[in-house]
Amino acid sequence: MKTHDITYMKLALSAAREAASNGEVPVGAVIVAAGKIVGSGYNRREERQNPLGHAEIMAIEEASRQLGSWRLDTCDIYVTLEPCLMCTGAILQARMRRLVFGCLDPKAGAVESLYRLCEDQRLNHQLPVTSGVLARESAATLADFFSHLREQKRQPKAERWPSPVEGA
Amino acid sequence: MKTHDITYMKLALSAAREAASNGEVPVGAVIVAAGKIVGSGYNRREERQNPLGHAEIMAIEEASRQLGSWRLDTCDIYVTLEPCLMCTGAILQARMRRLVFGCLDPKAGAVESLYRLCEDQRLNHQLPVTSGVLARESAATLADFFSHLREQKRQPKAERWPSPVEGA
Repeated sequence: MKTHDITYMKLALSAAREAASNGEVPVGAVIVAAGKIVGSGYNRREERQNPLGHAEIMAIEEASRQLGSWRLDTCDIYVTLEPCLMCTGAILQARMRRLVFGCLDPKAGAVESLYRLCEDQRLNHQLPVTSGVLARESAATLADFFSHLREQKRQPKAERWPSPVEGA
Repeated sequence: MKTHDITYMKLALSAAREAASNGEVPVGAVIVAAGKIVGSGYNRREERQNPLGHAEIMAIEEASRQLGSWRLDTCDIYVTLEPCLMCTGAILQARMRRLVFGCLDPKAGAVESLYRLCEDQRLNHQLPVTSGVLARESAATLADFFSHLREQKRQPKAERWPSPVEGA
């Protein structure tokens, strides 16, 4: 772990909380080049109704726009949750320099959990990975979101949304 | 193989040729829902300087915009080249119904060559795959592109671009 990892992961966590406040699964990402944030994003799949709406994809879009290049080989990406296949694939396509993530995703993670794509020597790019940075905070943000969601589902409808009669 | 597979793959091949005419590696994709094209795309990585600029990503973007949903579970995708990790991941994220592709990509393909992601039972989606549809035509389009590129590189610069003096 590097000294600034906590700082950047805190920014990724802020982005994740932005997603939660929009009712989206809270995952956040930031991209750093030469000590400067060049991209950030949070999960917006529902809002945008777009399967590509993951935090990492949003951040990569912004970074490549900012740097004017598809090749982000001077960039490090910080993500609160272990990236999925699509996002790890995008990180490899962008030839990113380093990946730092928070908590594991045992059901979909493609970096340590289900696959270890960043170290596959058959691919034309590999990159070093640091995992577990602010893992507890990242996992707690997700757990809070899902427990809140379950609670909402348990409550009868009338308690959540007053009917027109009750509300009058 | 289904009867209309050739028809849709021909459209994907036309899209791939569009990429070639822009100087991009020729890969094309179309997405079909209920017999209608709802998305299409071709490789635009260099033009857009965006690592996400693959044909499949362009087509998925368009289809989810057209259908107003991130869930493309009524959609079949036709791609001239075996999808990479990022694109196969995106196809899985979109819960697509079926994947049809042309030729294999032995160096980066994530459907049959390096990985077999569409049949991984640990993931929350699997989908049937038909490969080899117009494979020869798809591979020839790629081979032509790369041989043309190599030829250009072999020629001395003066032959390719007349110098200001020669052109005057």
